[in-house]
Amino acid sequence: MTANNWTAKIIDGKAIAEGIRSRIASEVSRMKELIGQVPGLAVILVGQRRDSETYVRNKTIASEEVGFKFKMIVFPENCTECEVCNALCRFNEDPSIHGILVQLPLPQLEQHLDEAKILNVISLEKDVDGFHPLNIGNLAMQGMEPLFVPCTPKGCIELLLQSGVEIMGKKAVVIGRSNIVGLPTSLLLQRHHATVTVLHAFTKNPEKIAREADILVSAAGVPNLVRGSWVKPGAVIVDVGTNPIEDRRSEHGYRLIGDVCFKEATRIASAITPVPGGVGPMTVAMLLCNTLESAKHAFNFT
Amino acid sequence: MTANNWTAKIIDGKAIAEGIRSRIASEVSRMKELIGQVPGLAVILVGQRRDSETYVRNKTIASEEVGFKFKMIVFPENCTECEVCNALCRFNEDPSIHGILVQLPLPQLEQHLDEAKILNVISLEKDVDGFHPLNIGNLAMQGMEPLFVPCTPKGCIELLLQSGVEIMGKKAVVIGRSNIVGLPTSLLLQRHHATVTVLHAFTKNPEKIAREADILVSAAGVPNLVRGSWVKPGAVIVDVGTNPIEDRRSEHGYRLIGDVCFKEATRIASAITPVPGGVGPMTVAMLLCNTLESAKHAFNFT
Repeated sequence: MTANNWTAKIIDGKAIAEGIRSRIASEVSRMKELIGQVPGLAVILVGQRRDSETYVRNKTIASEEVGFKFKMIVFPENCTECEVCNALCRFNEDPSIHGILVQLPLPQLEQHLDEAKILNVISLEKDVDGFHPLNIGNLAMQGMEPLFVPCTPKGCIELLLQSGVEIMGKKAVVIGRSNIVGLPTSLLLQRHHATVTVLHAFTKNPEKIAREADILVSAAGVPNLVRGSWVKPGAVIVDVGTNPIEDRRSEHGYRLIGDVCFKEATRIASAITPVPGGVGPMTVAMLLCNTLESAKHAFNFT
Repeated sequence: MTANNWTAKIIDGKAIAEGIRSRIASEVSRMKELIGQVPGLAVILVGQRRDSETYVRNKTIASEEVGFKFKMIVFPENCTECEVCNALCRFNEDPSIHGILVQLPLPQLEQHLDEAKILNVISLEKDVDGFHPLNIGNLAMQGMEPLFVPCTPKGCIELLLQSGVEIMGKKAVVIGRSNIVGLPTSLLLQRHHATVTVLHAFTKNPEKIAREADILVSAAGVPNLVRGSWVKPGAVIVDVGTNPIEDRRSEHGYRLIGDVCFKEATRIASAITPVPGGVGPMTVAMLLCNTLESAKHAFNFT
């Protein structure tokens, strides 16, 4: 494959997310003014994973900026399942909280925390991450509506839409099939009438299949997996990978890179989301969106 | 594409289904002998669609043959949603019933029957068709287990497995994305680690994509859609289409044909399911399977 001489448009997720956050902030002001209420978000963090702490910090800052009420509980790594579930139950019953999330992945000391069991405790009406199987089923089925679309997949689609990328009828390839990104992204692309193929660890010749994609979404968690040879000329690439790699020059001793070899891909694709500054900020913006929706529903506010 | 000179193996769904039904019959005998109970299946039919009546008749005969208790309620086309829901509630509460199904599609006189709403009334533990969104979500998600796998998709996979077709790592293409066949079949193939692409009405150049498939499942409901040129040499074809076409020589004035042009496909594929006698009998066998499973669970019988 010969690289074209164009350079891909960089899709600025940070700017798009800022626009969304500013719309949310004015909605929150209006809500406060008219009914004296604001949306409330509760986050549970277990353990001290460096990346999880970063994600939670971003969510805290963002939700305070838009005027949400924010509650967080941090549990030590060796906490019990019961402690986490009790905290979730209290948030379920708290009328000032409209969105609840447990930062994943949970630490797996001797498998003492059952992720599916814990997530299942979150009340459906407050499951703003949209990871409940009922939500995923409704996302998959035609004629059904999920209460909440998972944040990262919703952010990916929003980036495409706001960049003027048509999805209907396009060939989309999703690399990775995790419950929280790959699977719901593939379902959502299909809901927008793309022809979707999902690649995973058992796929033979993923490079050849990826090269057929008009829209290529990588959520594999493998740095530099997607080389230039994986990209169809003119394709649009959404890079969901956020892989920490050691970098002594960086403040924290590491920096984040995506799944896509950015330097090679920009020579071939027509548009690409960078890491950082692409999908990441959108995930947080979509979390705020879902929480606002939930609050509006709870207060019957339009 | 040049056709090879082989002739595809015809996958005998009728024989495979008979084997499964006979295993179910002995399980039912054993259950009756040991605990004095048998599985119970309840079917609701609304209206007089010719094909629905045929399907229901097949289910009746099959479930009586294996020794199930069988209950059926037939409603006129102009019945109310409430009447259907009340009947479903009675079956939900009836401890002698372990599987409940509403024959789809429902008649749509002025949209007076909301399919999603009606299906939602069926108790999850008795939803042997597996169409509940929670079940579909659990089918889609890794690490989760659906209570019941929808019958036709389960039958398709069973045909592949019993014919010695390896699924893991294969390229599978599913034509059609209906909630009851296309979608759950694609999810189930992915669960078996195929690389799955779903084609639908908005797909561009479906022929080219289909021709890449090692396993091609057609559930489009379009007679003779899949011509020889859609088939990769050596592919395995599962034809879910059951399209009635007029045939004056036939007893009922019509006969069923598949989505696949059988004559052309058999020259190119390595194996193919016929219509009738392929997926159809398997759907009924899987319904019996699911109902037996449900009864064993209810009676705590192993």
